[in-house]
Amino acid sequence: MIKKINIAQKFELFSDHWNPRIIAELNGQAVKLAKLKGEFDWHLHEHEDEMFIIFKGQLTMQLREGNIILNEGEVIIIPKGTEHRPVSVEEVLVLLFEPITALNTGNIMNERTRPRLEWI
Amino acid sequence: MIKKINIAQKFELFSDHWNPRIIAELNGQAVKLAKLKGEFDWHLHEHEDEMFIIFKGQLTMQLREGNIILNEGEVIIIPKGTEHRPVSVEEVLVLLFEPITALNTGNIMNERTRPRLEWI
Repeated sequence: MIKKINIAQKFELFSDHWNPRIIAELNGQAVKLAKLKGEFDWHLHEHEDEMFIIFKGQLTMQLREGNIILNEGEVIIIPKGTEHRPVSVEEVLVLLFEPITALNTGNIMNERTRPRLEWI
Repeated sequence: MIKKINIAQKFELFSDHWNPRIIAELNGQAVKLAKLKGEFDWHLHEHEDEMFIIFKGQLTMQLREGNIILNEGEVIIIPKGTEHRPVSVEEVLVLLFEPITALNTGNIMNERTRPRLEWI
């Protein structure tokens, strides 16, 4: 039975930051939702490109080549191997697309690393 | 140089229906935009799951098991091998996410088949 997914309703199911949830999988890629606030860690994904779509709020994506400010309805793709650091003063809601195997902190492991993501 | 993509601005670049444009590629998957209006053809994608995200408007996804009505901010994944037929009375703007090789009309070929999609 195929069911639709309502993104806004899924975002209501959790409130913690930097802890992505999986809402769908297709072709080995995961669709994840995350609430971000504050400064994350510089990291890269060695084998996976990663796409961020801003659902609500504003995100600053820090790159070594400069910062990119993303607003609602804007998209950025971080190519594999590219160091990046998401930062937001206020809470921002984002959709992530990346291989289901991608780790949130990429090449680093720390207290924010989430090896197993919850499905919602 | 990494650049952001504004989805609404990309939608302003074309007006024809049933002719998806590619706005991004990652991990072998394409992100496409399409404007749909009217009734498409029943088809399936043998090897590719396909995701629709409704950006604006309302889409009815006809499936052999029943119809699903999708509004803005709602998502549906059509698993590979599943017959489907998008229908909308009014124009609807959708994001598509599927392997870059996926053909818009899947297993059928007709005047709406778009073997080469334009990048915008």
